[in-house]
Amino acid sequence: MFVEMAAYPNNVVAGELGAGLKVLERIRVVLVEPSHPGNIGGAARALKVMGLSDLAVVNPQRFPDPQAEWRAAGAQDVLTSTTVHETLDEAIADCHWVVGASTRQRRIPWPLMSAEEIAREAINRQSSAPNNRIAILFGREANGLTNDELQKCHCHLRIPAHPDYPSLNLAMAVQVVSYELFKQASGGQPVADVWDRAPATAEQVEGLMTHLENVLISIGFLDPANPGQSLTRLRRLFNRIQPDETEVQMLRGVLNHLGKGNSGPN
Amino acid sequence: MFVEMAAYPNNVVAGELGAGLKVLERIRVVLVEPSHPGNIGGAARALKVMGLSDLAVVNPQRFPDPQAEWRAAGAQDVLTSTTVHETLDEAIADCHWVVGASTRQRRIPWPLMSAEEIAREAINRQSSAPNNRIAILFGREANGLTNDELQKCHCHLRIPAHPDYPSLNLAMAVQVVSYELFKQASGGQPVADVWDRAPATAEQVEGLMTHLENVLISIGFLDPANPGQSLTRLRRLFNRIQPDETEVQMLRGVLNHLGKGNSGPN
Repeated sequence: MFVEMAAYPNNVVAGELGAGLKVLERIRVVLVEPSHPGNIGGAARALKVMGLSDLAVVNPQRFPDPQAEWRAAGAQDVLTSTTVHETLDEAIADCHWVVGASTRQRRIPWPLMSAEEIAREAINRQSSAPNNRIAILFGREANGLTNDELQKCHCHLRIPAHPDYPSLNLAMAVQVVSYELFKQASGGQPVADVWDRAPATAEQVEGLMTHLENVLISIGFLDPANPGQSLTRLRRLFNRIQPDETEVQMLRGVLNHLGKGNSGPN
Repeated sequence: MFVEMAAYPNNVVAGELGAGLKVLERIRVVLVEPSHPGNIGGAARALKVMGLSDLAVVNPQRFPDPQAEWRAAGAQDVLTSTTVHETLDEAIADCHWVVGASTRQRRIPWPLMSAEEIAREAINRQSSAPNNRIAILFGREANGLTNDELQKCHCHLRIPAHPDYPSLNLAMAVQVVSYELFKQASGGQPVADVWDRAPATAEQVEGLMTHLENVLISIGFLDPANPGQSLTRLRRLFNRIQPDETEVQMLRGVLNHLGKGNSGPN
């Protein structure tokens, strides 16, 4: 199946996307009592690749730690600016909308959205109130956020996952949510490289088909009196491929050589 | 902002989603020459939480390895059934559509889609040709897939990321793509818990507002001759909250007690 090639953000530099991505600066990811420093580093990297930079940790078991640095890879800056807090209240004190990741249904249900819905809502909120700050909380590796912590949230967040084993690794969960935030902030443009050649016109493709038909007859593959379905199938094949100009020229070059070969040596 | 609560997949068990998720069984994730066994384990877990199970590795530096097992957590079954291949050709021999993760623009552009577009296309393909098998290739941690490997692909895949540092960790990239596949396969239902109470009717909310107004007058907060904007703001507040029946009853209970307190002890 052919992929439509539109002009695309591949060529876009950070500056051009900048306005949209600016909202990501005011979204804080808060890890509550993470046990493994590797997950703090993994989260830092997950944030940075998606244009986020505000990471807070509440009561980490080990941090700073070489494991965190190793997993952060190119996101040492995010790790260095990570704030460490003794309480969750302190970590979210200046935030206007607080979201908590939750995997279980609560006894008293709370407003709940998927990662995609949270991202859309967060970006909408930041667009209409750009000075607001949003916090997204992720709980302990083993048992998530407590009920008390979840009750501090305006909304709960769930990452869709298979009901048999919906337990994402902590840093992975941060990655998925950051990815959804980036997608929303960057406007969800479709991804496509700029194609390097213009698509062939209908006339150019028709020329190729006629050329091909003539060669197939001349080499004895096609009987013009009884062509069967081969031409239709070839026509469908080339319509499906949607060749570009250079590809059509190249294929006609091949057909020219075949024609010559068939009519004897030059 | 209130979240609309629809009946939701939270109550859905694997069996009910089963038909849609079955297509995920025929999507293989192939890691080409991964250096870190932790990433193989992380990828196994990333697959399992999203309902995938077919993991293949080509020429891994260290596998099996305790690091892989540790990172796989509850996905030991996926790790145990992971196939190890000497060549990429062997790993994808039985696949009908091959996609390769790519972060750089190639000299000769290739069809390219985002993770979301690839997931949509993959699920569409599996729905119309359920016996087909799809492979999604991820390259080495340090430098991805080679040009030769990318040229074996029908389509390239790019995960949208910040242009300044678009380098996702290998297992994270697998997680994001698996997540998009699961979202597409499960039909992208919005996430919401079943609310435990019926929303209040307009009449019930109106009753609460009248009750509140009377109490505010009786305690001397409101001057009925000169009410100002307080009532309008309170009305906006309660319309925004969209309380449920139990919440309205509870608030009216509080108002009853206030009324009593104000009119002296019982």
